[in-house]
Amino acid sequence: MPGAESNGLIIVYTGNGKGKTTAALGAALRALGHGKKVHVAYFMKGESPYGEQIAMSKLPNITFSKFGRKGFVDPENVTPEDRQEAQKSLLAAKEAALGGNYGLVILDEINVAVAWNLLEVETVINLIDNKPANVDIILTGRYADQKLIERADLVTEMLEIKHPYARGEGAKKGIDY
Amino acid sequence: MPGAESNGLIIVYTGNGKGKTTAALGAALRALGHGKKVHVAYFMKGESPYGEQIAMSKLPNITFSKFGRKGFVDPENVTPEDRQEAQKSLLAAKEAALGGNYGLVILDEINVAVAWNLLEVETVINLIDNKPANVDIILTGRYADQKLIERADLVTEMLEIKHPYARGEGAKKGIDY
Repeated sequence: MPGAESNGLIIVYTGNGKGKTTAALGAALRALGHGKKVHVAYFMKGESPYGEQIAMSKLPNITFSKFGRKGFVDPENVTPEDRQEAQKSLLAAKEAALGGNYGLVILDEINVAVAWNLLEVETVINLIDNKPANVDIILTGRYADQKLIERADLVTEMLEIKHPYARGEGAKKGIDY
Repeated sequence: MPGAESNGLIIVYTGNGKGKTTAALGAALRALGHGKKVHVAYFMKGESPYGEQIAMSKLPNITFSKFGRKGFVDPENVTPEDRQEAQKSLLAAKEAALGGNYGLVILDEINVAVAWNLLEVETVINLIDNKPANVDIILTGRYADQKLIERADLVTEMLEIKHPYARGEGAKKGIDY
């Protein structure tokens, strides 16, 4: 259809089920296949050895930014450093989204960063509002802010129907990370 | 945790929202990053030029099988040829799953193939029941059969909250295909 290529979409993957970050990565793969550059900004996963990064590092045209101090963010006790690291991620994402070289920018777990007050939702909306028309943005993570849902073009809620953790199994290499 | 690597998961991505096939592809990327071989068997998409296939063809250790006659399957008028093509896909998937070389086998849109009677659910369950313990299987598509949901370890329903098609926009290259 006319103009489809030039109208970037704002996509939100939220909900409590598996598949949010995974779906964003699948979208990255599609975008790469269509010759677009992709940037993945990780907001809540500072230090894990993700299989996807190993695999994607073999592909051209995809870059990553990862900030966040060691260890997990405690939502009951967010530190100034947590907020600074989230700001660094947002800045990297903004440079990618606004720089004109990237066709898709993934803001991984940014919904959680907003819900936990590491970032203000307005700064995220500001990024979206200022992006070039042809850039797609994917925001992942539980607890998507209502303002982001309203601003998005496409929102999917991943709903957990059944999960092996409920059977007492831990996270699985190659599936969960 | 002990044994995690040897216990393959049966994962179902279903529901009416975007992100099912996309999530499976993200899982493929993770598996590749962890050194596993991946096979993707397409059950309902015989002829489209998917971006992901172009990108993934640049990665080692991933293979595809695609059958299906030209054009779309009409659920009101399923032909013997449709059923034969679905059987070919199942056979290719079975060879990958049972052959011992693959760590992840994706049965893309197989839920729809079952719902539209291109395949009997028992033949799919038979594949799952006979796979080596360490193989992960992902089944995607709307209308997942209750028997497959019961058999699965992890089920996520992708729920459409908002979709640009509702605004009259068509499918978008690099995002939808």
